[in-house]
Amino acid sequence: MKIETLKWVGNHLEVIDQRILPSTFTYISCWCALDVANAIKNMIIRGAPAIGIAAAYGIALEALRYENSTPSTFVAKLKIAFLVLGSSRPTAVNLSWALNRMELRWRGLSDNNNMKKIASELLSLAQELAASDVHINQRMGQIGAKLLPNVANVLTHCNAGALATVGYGTALGVLRSAVEMGKQISVVADETRPFLQGARLTAWEMVQEGIPCTLITDNMSGHLMSKGEIDAVVVGADRVAANGDVANKIGTYMVAVLSRRHKIPFYVACPLSTIDLSMPTGDDIPIEERGGDEVRGFGGSSWAAEGVRTRNPSFDITPAELVTALITENGVVLEPDEEKLKGLMTSEFH
Amino acid sequence: MKIETLKWVGNHLEVIDQRILPSTFTYISCWCALDVANAIKNMIIRGAPAIGIAAAYGIALEALRYENSTPSTFVAKLKIAFLVLGSSRPTAVNLSWALNRMELRWRGLSDNNNMKKIASELLSLAQELAASDVHINQRMGQIGAKLLPNVANVLTHCNAGALATVGYGTALGVLRSAVEMGKQISVVADETRPFLQGARLTAWEMVQEGIPCTLITDNMSGHLMSKGEIDAVVVGADRVAANGDVANKIGTYMVAVLSRRHKIPFYVACPLSTIDLSMPTGDDIPIEERGGDEVRGFGGSSWAAEGVRTRNPSFDITPAELVTALITENGVVLEPDEEKLKGLMTSEFH
Repeated sequence: MKIETLKWVGNHLEVIDQRILPSTFTYISCWCALDVANAIKNMIIRGAPAIGIAAAYGIALEALRYENSTPSTFVAKLKIAFLVLGSSRPTAVNLSWALNRMELRWRGLSDNNNMKKIASELLSLAQELAASDVHINQRMGQIGAKLLPNVANVLTHCNAGALATVGYGTALGVLRSAVEMGKQISVVADETRPFLQGARLTAWEMVQEGIPCTLITDNMSGHLMSKGEIDAVVVGADRVAANGDVANKIGTYMVAVLSRRHKIPFYVACPLSTIDLSMPTGDDIPIEERGGDEVRGFGGSSWAAEGVRTRNPSFDITPAELVTALITENGVVLEPDEEKLKGLMTSEFH
Repeated sequence: MKIETLKWVGNHLEVIDQRILPSTFTYISCWCALDVANAIKNMIIRGAPAIGIAAAYGIALEALRYENSTPSTFVAKLKIAFLVLGSSRPTAVNLSWALNRMELRWRGLSDNNNMKKIASELLSLAQELAASDVHINQRMGQIGAKLLPNVANVLTHCNAGALATVGYGTALGVLRSAVEMGKQISVVADETRPFLQGARLTAWEMVQEGIPCTLITDNMSGHLMSKGEIDAVVVGADRVAANGDVANKIGTYMVAVLSRRHKIPFYVACPLSTIDLSMPTGDDIPIEERGGDEVRGFGGSSWAAEGVRTRNPSFDITPAELVTALITENGVVLEPDEEKLKGLMTSEFH
C-alpha cells in the first residue's frame, strides 16, 4: 500500500486524518486556506515537510476560490491566507519556506488582474513542490542509507515517515532505502508521547511494509542503548539553525544525549527546506507549547489526576555538537556547523 | 486525606487498586498468599516498599488460614506461600527482604506445632514492618529535605509516594518533609509510561495535599532541564547494588544522564531494606520484562499499530557515578560506592 499523505483531487485537497490512525484510515477534505490551517493546527496533518506542502495547497485553494472575484478581494483573501497558514504552527520552518515559494511565484506574475492565471500557476507550483518532496526524500534516503551498517537496530523518534511528508519520508526514507539496498534493518520506534506518532504512525508504516519494528515507550531507549541494542539513531527535523542546532519533536534531545553517552551515531534527515540560516542558533527557534489535554491523556480520554497543571512543549533543541551528521538531498554534513551549512545552502543554487 | 495504601482489617488485608486510580478509588481484599501475589503481579499494589510489606502480610494470611490444619499441611502451605510471593516480581529487593524477615521469625519460634502462636507472631511482625515503614519514610524525609534549596522545582519519576509504601513515601516523603519545613517546592512529575504512575499516582497525591505539581510526558524532562526549569531530581529505588548502582522504574536512567549533563543534583531516596549487598553491581540485578499490552496502549485500550512487536523492560539501572546521593533513614550517602554502603549497612546493627 502506497501512503498518500495528501493528494490533490480535481478541485480540492484531501489529507489523511492522522489523529485517528491506525485504528481508522480516512481522508479529510480541505476546500480553502482555513480548512488547511485548521488541519495543520489540529494535527490532522503533521510533519514539517507535509505541513509545508499542505500550506502551499492552501494558498492554491484560496486563489482558485476567489479567481472570479474582484482583484482587490482576490489580493485581500490571498494575503489573509498567507497570514493564517503562516501562523498555524510556529516551529517547523517548512511552512514559511513553502509559503515564501508561493509568494515569490505570485509576485513574479506580471499581470495581477489575471486571477485565473495566478490561481492556475499557484496550483502548479504546489503540485511541483509536492512531487519534488518525494524525489528529495528518495535522494536523501539513498544518501543516508549508506551511513548505516549492513545489519542494524535503528532507533527513530516520532514519525518522520511517509505520513510526515508527501511520501517516502525523511528519517524513515533513509530506513526504507537501506532495506531496498538489502540491509537488514530492524526499527525501534519509541511511542512519542503525547501524540503517539511513533506507536500509531511509524509502527503502522513499518508494519505495512513488513520492515521489522519494535515499539517501546519514550523512557526505554536509554536502557536499550545501555544494553547495546541500538546501533544508530535516525530522526527528522522541524528546523535546523545556521549553526546546526536541530529543532525536532519533544524528546529528541534526550535521545541525542543518550546516544552520545553510548557512542551511537545520531543522524538527522532533513531536506534543505528545513534549514533556516536566518536563525543563528537553536535558542532562536520558537518552540510551540500546546494545550494540556494532550498530556493528561490521549484521544479524548484522560487518566491524569484532576487539577494537576501541565506543560506541553511540542519540540526541543538538540545542539549541533550531539549531531553526528545531517543527511540532506545535497549530501551528508558530518559534524554540522555554520560554515558547512552555509556552504551546503549556497551549493543548492549552483 | 491520609492515604492508606494497604491496611489490615481484622482478618484480612485490603489494598488500594492502583490500576484504576485516580478515576476510581477502591480497595481490593486479599484473603490468602495467592491473592497478595496476584495483586503484586498485576500491579494492583506496586512500589518496592509496599510490595515488601504486602508480601509479609501474605505470609501472615496464609499462616492464619492454616493455623487449624495439621502441622505438615501448615508447613507445606507456608513454604509454597514464600515461593509464590517471592517470585511475584523480580526486581525490587524489598520483597525478599520482607520475606526473609518473616522466615527468620518463623524459624525463631521453638514450638513448630503451635500454629496459632506462629500465625499470631507472623501477623505481629507484618504489622511491625508496616508501622516501621512509615517511620522510616518520615525519617528519610527529614534527612533528605535538608538537601533541597528553599525554593525549588523538583522532578520526580514514577511514584515513590505514599502509594508505593505503607504511607508518606520515599522520594515524595522527602518532598512532603521539605514542604512541612516551609520550603517552596514545586513538583514536576513525568507521567511514567507505560503504567502512568506519575500522571495517575504522583500527581494525585500532590493534588490531594495541595503541593504544586506540573505533569509532563517522559520525553520532556530534558527540555525543561536545558531551560533551567529543574533544580533537583528525587526518585525512589527498587534495589541498590553494593556499588551504589540503582535499579528503579524504567526511564530513571535517562533522567539521571540528563541531570548530570545539566549539573542538576540527582537524589535517590531508599530505605536500607532496598540496599542489596549481595548484588555486586547493577548488572547483576534482574530486570523484569512485562507483557506488550502495557506498551501498546493503556487500561485495556490499544492505540499502537496492529502487528508491531514490543519490548517492555520495567526497570533500568542508573550507575552509581550518576547518583549525587542516596537518602536513607541512617543518613545521606554522598557519591555512593561499595565502601560507603558497607559502612552504612553495618552501622544499622550498632
